[in-house]
Amino acid sequence: MEKIFSYDQLYQFTYHIFQAIGCNDADATTATKALLSADIRGIDSHGVARLSGYVRLWEAKRINARPVIKIVHETPSTAVVDGDSGLGLVVAPYAMQVAIDKAKQCGTGWVSVRNSNHFGIAGYHAMMALQHDMIGMAMTNASALVAPTFSIEKMLGTNPIAVAIPAKEQPAFVADFATTTAANGKLEILQRKNADTPPGWVQDKNGNASTNANELKQGGALLPLGSDREHGSHKGYALGSIVDIFSAVLSGASYGPWAPPFPAYVPMPQNMPGVGLGHFFGVMRVDAFRPADEFKEHMDNWITRFRNAKTADGYDKVLIPGDPEREMEKIRMEEGIPIVDSVIADLENVGEKFGIEL
Amino acid sequence: MEKIFSYDQLYQFTYHIFQAIGCNDADATTATKALLSADIRGIDSHGVARLSGYVRLWEAKRINARPVIKIVHETPSTAVVDGDSGLGLVVAPYAMQVAIDKAKQCGTGWVSVRNSNHFGIAGYHAMMALQHDMIGMAMTNASALVAPTFSIEKMLGTNPIAVAIPAKEQPAFVADFATTTAANGKLEILQRKNADTPPGWVQDKNGNASTNANELKQGGALLPLGSDREHGSHKGYALGSIVDIFSAVLSGASYGPWAPPFPAYVPMPQNMPGVGLGHFFGVMRVDAFRPADEFKEHMDNWITRFRNAKTADGYDKVLIPGDPEREMEKIRMEEGIPIVDSVIADLENVGEKFGIEL
Repeated sequence: MEKIFSYDQLYQFTYHIFQAIGCNDADATTATKALLSADIRGIDSHGVARLSGYVRLWEAKRINARPVIKIVHETPSTAVVDGDSGLGLVVAPYAMQVAIDKAKQCGTGWVSVRNSNHFGIAGYHAMMALQHDMIGMAMTNASALVAPTFSIEKMLGTNPIAVAIPAKEQPAFVADFATTTAANGKLEILQRKNADTPPGWVQDKNGNASTNANELKQGGALLPLGSDREHGSHKGYALGSIVDIFSAVLSGASYGPWAPPFPAYVPMPQNMPGVGLGHFFGVMRVDAFRPADEFKEHMDNWITRFRNAKTADGYDKVLIPGDPEREMEKIRMEEGIPIVDSVIADLENVGEKFGIEL
Repeated sequence: MEKIFSYDQLYQFTYHIFQAIGCNDADATTATKALLSADIRGIDSHGVARLSGYVRLWEAKRINARPVIKIVHETPSTAVVDGDSGLGLVVAPYAMQVAIDKAKQCGTGWVSVRNSNHFGIAGYHAMMALQHDMIGMAMTNASALVAPTFSIEKMLGTNPIAVAIPAKEQPAFVADFATTTAANGKLEILQRKNADTPPGWVQDKNGNASTNANELKQGGALLPLGSDREHGSHKGYALGSIVDIFSAVLSGASYGPWAPPFPAYVPMPQNMPGVGLGHFFGVMRVDAFRPADEFKEHMDNWITRFRNAKTADGYDKVLIPGDPEREMEKIRMEEGIPIVDSVIADLENVGEKFGIEL
């Protein structure tokens, strides 16, 4: 069961909730846009469905609604940003802007962030670079849910990577993916339906193959992209590790199994080696390599060639990263965004706390 | 059947072959070290086994043994390098040095390379950064062997990514992996044994699942990391695409299905949109983010924690990326490098052309 909401309805509600917890106008606007970009792009697990989670983190004093975000170290092409426990939805766009400004000056900008929180979808931040004819990258560490190859311990988050690359006539190439076989959001959908997972998504607490969507609640773990050693899970484990190190070890955030958990009821890990969650952003000016128009024309050629690659039986076309989300955005901005009943109830609960109607 | 060779034996032979095709002393030295790093690290498919392939490319006038490698465009943190059709084994270390020099000046360096050839193992180049307390990255596009998700056309190479990150007491973190489920070298090993592949490595010419290790010779393709859509092959496809775009579209090399093939007998693609193969290198000075010692101590802590993660039944320990290759290097530098008979015969053939004894 679900109900359709317009973007504006969700925007007004979300904005006022962020304002109610103490965000100023600019931050509430920034956070709302970043959060709802997930809903319009069809990544339902990362949008308003998480709003109550952010509020609970604020109630637990783990999110500071009035952060003083600042650069604590920098070189011409790099910076470390301290998010002052702010909403990741606000800290990330700040840090991405720092990276864009550095790229304007010296070709590229690379920013590692500490003392932040969950930043929504990585793709939204990476895409900030596109309007400047720049390539954008965004990644983040996250609560440990993933077991490295050969291990039964949850050591890494689903640690997503997003890369946005501008084209000319064609829409931009926008990859945005968890470094696991399946994102946790997909597991949650199966949990609601009481359905099994395909093999290769999760393992049980002893490291055995499992198709139980509730395995994580019983000591099991998500599997790195590749699923098992024979299918390259050591590569997914390496990718998730690189995201963790760039986001948290470079910046001074808390890494690996010590990453702060998203659910406010989960106690913080002991002996944390850094502060808060970490992110990493990269921006490269296209014309730091070749004339922007020339690059974008070749991207059009690249995209057209791949889109027209011969398909296997049963498939209409080969997709370019970003195609499904862009098509979803078009539909949802016209027809509205479906929100399932359980999320509506959750949002109404949050609204009641502050006297804000959905 | 195989025979053991010392590193010095292989070094002398390889060096003289490179000299015989016209490399000067410095380039022959650089190329030999880069090529043999694969043999000592246990990546047998990318070492001396490929020497005759390089010679055939030189015979076909697709490799220039006396290249004038140069920077054709630059900003403080970026450069585009033209390899002048040189050995990738020589062009890549040149470009990596440019990236290191840029990082010294402004924190990071990012170099995209066109007009190059196969560069050996990506990890060797990435590791050049370690001695400077820098993080190194290396990637390359390659002959098209991989079908994108939903496609039956070979559009991408196995496009590897390497990332090397320094630690203090612990050995460095060195990830180096093809963005496919299995590297082509693993397929070649099964072909020699006449053995099947595990499911999920290759598909047949119609896009059906296959376990035939010879499928690529019959119109089939390698699969992106993730194997199929349900297990995240769109992520492997995105990763391989990013490598292709950073290496070749940014630099002006030939991309996607137009990447020049490694076997000299395969005709060059028609209407190539760029020149030669492309590579991409990145270097980040650790102290552009936080004091190098502090970073490296946290890397020690990260590595130790992951190495000591609880193992699944049947496994001794959790590996850190780079562990197997480093252990192999120790063994092979002491005990020698096993070379299979077919490769020995191939090397002897090459040696005869130039009057050089193995």
